[in-house]
Amino acid sequence: MAKTYKIAVIPGDGIGKEVTPWAQKALEKAAEGVADFEYENFDLGAERYLRDGAILPEDEEERIKANDAILLGAVGDPRIKAGILERGLLLKLRFDLDQYVNLRPSKLYKGVTSPLANPGDIDFVVVREGTEGLYCGAGGAVRRNTPQEVATEVSINTAYGVERVVRYAFKLAMKRKKHVTLVHKKNVLVNAGDMWQRIVDKVGEEYPEVTHDYQHIDAATIFLVSDPSRFDVILTDNLFGDILTDEAGSVVGGVGYSASGCINASDEFPSMFEPIHGSAPDIAGQNKANPTAAILSAAMLLEHLGFDDAAKKIHTAVEADIEELGSTVRSTDQVGKDILARM
Amino acid sequence: MAKTYKIAVIPGDGIGKEVTPWAQKALEKAAEGVADFEYENFDLGAERYLRDGAILPEDEEERIKANDAILLGAVGDPRIKAGILERGLLLKLRFDLDQYVNLRPSKLYKGVTSPLANPGDIDFVVVREGTEGLYCGAGGAVRRNTPQEVATEVSINTAYGVERVVRYAFKLAMKRKKHVTLVHKKNVLVNAGDMWQRIVDKVGEEYPEVTHDYQHIDAATIFLVSDPSRFDVILTDNLFGDILTDEAGSVVGGVGYSASGCINASDEFPSMFEPIHGSAPDIAGQNKANPTAAILSAAMLLEHLGFDDAAKKIHTAVEADIEELGSTVRSTDQVGKDILARM
Ligand SMILES: CC(C)[C@H](C(=O)O)[C@@H](O)C(=O)O
Ligand SMILES: CC(C)[C@H](C(=O)O)[C@@H](O)C(=O)O
Repeated sequence: MAKTYKIAVIPGDGIGKEVTPWAQKALEKAAEGVADFEYENFDLGAERYLRDGAILPEDEEERIKANDAILLGAVGDPRIKAGILERGLLLKLRFDLDQYVNLRPSKLYKGVTSPLANPGDIDFVVVREGTEGLYCGAGGAVRRNTPQEVATEVSINTAYGVERVVRYAFKLAMKRKKHVTLVHKKNVLVNAGDMWQRIVDKVGEEYPEVTHDYQHIDAATIFLVSDPSRFDVILTDNLFGDILTDEAGSVVGGVGYSASGCINASDEFPSMFEPIHGSAPDIAGQNKANPTAAILSAAMLLEHLGFDDAAKKIHTAVEADIEELGSTVRSTDQVGKDILARM
Repeated sequence: MAKTYKIAVIPGDGIGKEVTPWAQKALEKAAEGVADFEYENFDLGAERYLRDGAILPEDEEERIKANDAILLGAVGDPRIKAGILERGLLLKLRFDLDQYVNLRPSKLYKGVTSPLANPGDIDFVVVREGTEGLYCGAGGAVRRNTPQEVATEVSINTAYGVERVVRYAFKLAMKRKKHVTLVHKKNVLVNAGDMWQRIVDKVGEEYPEVTHDYQHIDAATIFLVSDPSRFDVILTDNLFGDILTDEAGSVVGGVGYSASGCINASDEFPSMFEPIHGSAPDIAGQNKANPTAAILSAAMLLEHLGFDDAAKKIHTAVEADIEELGSTVRSTDQVGKDILARM
C-alpha cells in the first residue's frame, strides 16, 4: 500500500496561488500508486500580513514542521517594505528548519531560447549554503538617519555549517559529471574564503574521483555568460549562491523554468520546494503565469522523498512539453493540463 | 605652455608589463600640446614580492602619493596565496588613497561580438563604492583548522562614505542619460541596504531631472543578460560592484575592452587607472595581450585631469580600430601602433 505523506502548502501571494495547485496535481499524478499526499494549507505571505499583521505565528510554524515536506509558491508584495516577509517568513523557515542545502538546478531545455548566442549544453546544479553567511541577520546600525550613521552586516560562517554542505555537493557530484567548482571571493574575504577552501580540499580527498576547482565570484559571473556548459556542480555560500542562480536562471531562458529546494539533508525538519520566480504582482490573477517551475519543484520534492521514478515522469513530461510547445503562448491552466496529459 | 603631470606607473605582473607602455604612449600622443607627463616607475607586484618579500613599502607608497595620478597594469601570480597582493597592494592603495569611486564603464563597441544573441545598445557606467563594505578587512576567525572554526567577514558602511559616492553617481548621470539604478540586497542586508536607499532618496531630491530606481543584486545579474541596454548609471557597493562589472565585461565581449578608474574625487590623493583584466600569466611575454583596455584607462586618466578633448581622441581612435580590425588577430604592439596611428 502506498504510504501517505503530509505536505505543508504555502501558496503565498500573486501567481504563487495560481501555480501551486499545478505542482500539487503533478505530484499526485507522478506518484500514483507509490505515494499519497495529504495537504495542510497555510495562509502566509503578504496578503495575510496586510490583513492581520501575522508573518509566521509560532503555532503555525510548529504545524509546518510536523509535515514531511513543504511546497511554497511565491511570497511578496510591493506594498510591503523590503525585508519584512523575506526575513520574517522565507528566511525564517530556511533557518529554523535548518535547510542548509539550497539546491538549484539550471538546465537549458530544448525549445527554450537562451539570451546567449551560443549557449552550448547547459546543465549544472548550484549547491548554495542556506543557513549562514550574510543571511544570518547579524549586523546593525548606529546613529541611524544622521550623517554619522554606520551600518554593518556580518557574515558568519562555521566549519560545521560549511562542511555539511560541502559533503552534500561532493556526494551529488558523484551522481553527475564528478566535478565541483567552489565559488567564493577568497582573495578579499580571506577568513571565510580560506575556511571554505580548506574544507573543500579536505572533503575532496575523500572523493578522489571528483575533481574540484575554484573561481572567484566575479570570474564565475563571466563564465556563466561566456561558457556556462563548463559547470557541473557549483558550490558556494548563501549570498553568492543567490546571485549566481538568478544569473543562471537568466542564461537558461528565464527563471520561469527554474525550481529550487531548501533542503534539510539530515531530515530533522521538512525540506521546502519552490519555483525560483517571485509573486509577479503585474501578471497575477490573469491565468498567465507559467506553472512549469512550480511543477519542477514538485519533482524535486519527489526526489527528496526518494521517488526518483516518479520525479523522472515529471521531468520527461516537462521536457517534452517545452520542446514541443515552449514557444507558444498558453494560459497557466493550459500549460498545467498539457504537462499532466503527458505524464 | 603645457603643464607637466607626474604619473606613478605600476606595470605590475605578466601582461601588465606589456600593455602599460601603450597606455603611456597613448597618453602622450593624446595630450600633445596640452599636457606633458613625467613618469615614476614602481616595481611592485608578484615578481617583486617573490624576489624580496616587499608588497608596498611605506616610502614607496609615500612617493606614489606625491604623483598626480597612477597608471596600473595588472597584479597577480598563481604562485602567491590569494589575498596577499590583493589586500596588501591593490586594495591598500584604494583604501589609503581614499579612492572612493570605482568607475567602470561598459560599452559594446561596434565590431565586438557580444556573447548575447540580442545585446542591444549597451553603454552604461558602474559607480562602485571603493573604500567600504566587505572590502575593509574587518572579520576574523576563531578555532581555525578545527571542526569548531567560526569565520566572519564584516561589511562596514558609513553615511559619510555612501553619500559621497551617491553624489558622484547623480552628478555623472546629469552628463549622461539621467538615470541611476541603485543595486543592493536590501531585503536581506537590511541595515546597509536601508541606509543606501535613504541616502539615494535624499540626494535624488537635489537632482529632480535624474530618475532613479532600485534593483536587488540578484535581479540586476538577470537584467545584465536579458536587457543590458536599460542601464545608464549603476550605483552599488564594493562587493556588488565587483561582481556586476565582471559580468558586464563579459556581456560587452570580454574584459579586454574594459578600463576602470579608482578615483579620489576630492583630489586629496592621486587617482588610479587600470584595465579590468588581470595579469594573465598564461599568455604573458608572448606579445599577445590586447592593450586596448590599458589604452582606455589612459583616456579615463585624461578625463580625470580635465582633458576631455584629449580623452576623446583616444576613444575615437579605439572605436575606429575595433570597428575595423577588432576581429583580426594582432600582436600587442600591432594593436598599440594601429590605435596610435589613428590619433
Ligand atoms: C527573497 C530573497 C530573500 C531570496 C534570497 O535572497 O535568498 C530570493 O532571492 C531567493 O533566491 O530565494
Ligand atoms: C583583485 C581584486 C581584489 C579586485 C576586487 O575585488 O576589487 C578585482 O576583482 C577588481 O575588480 O578590481
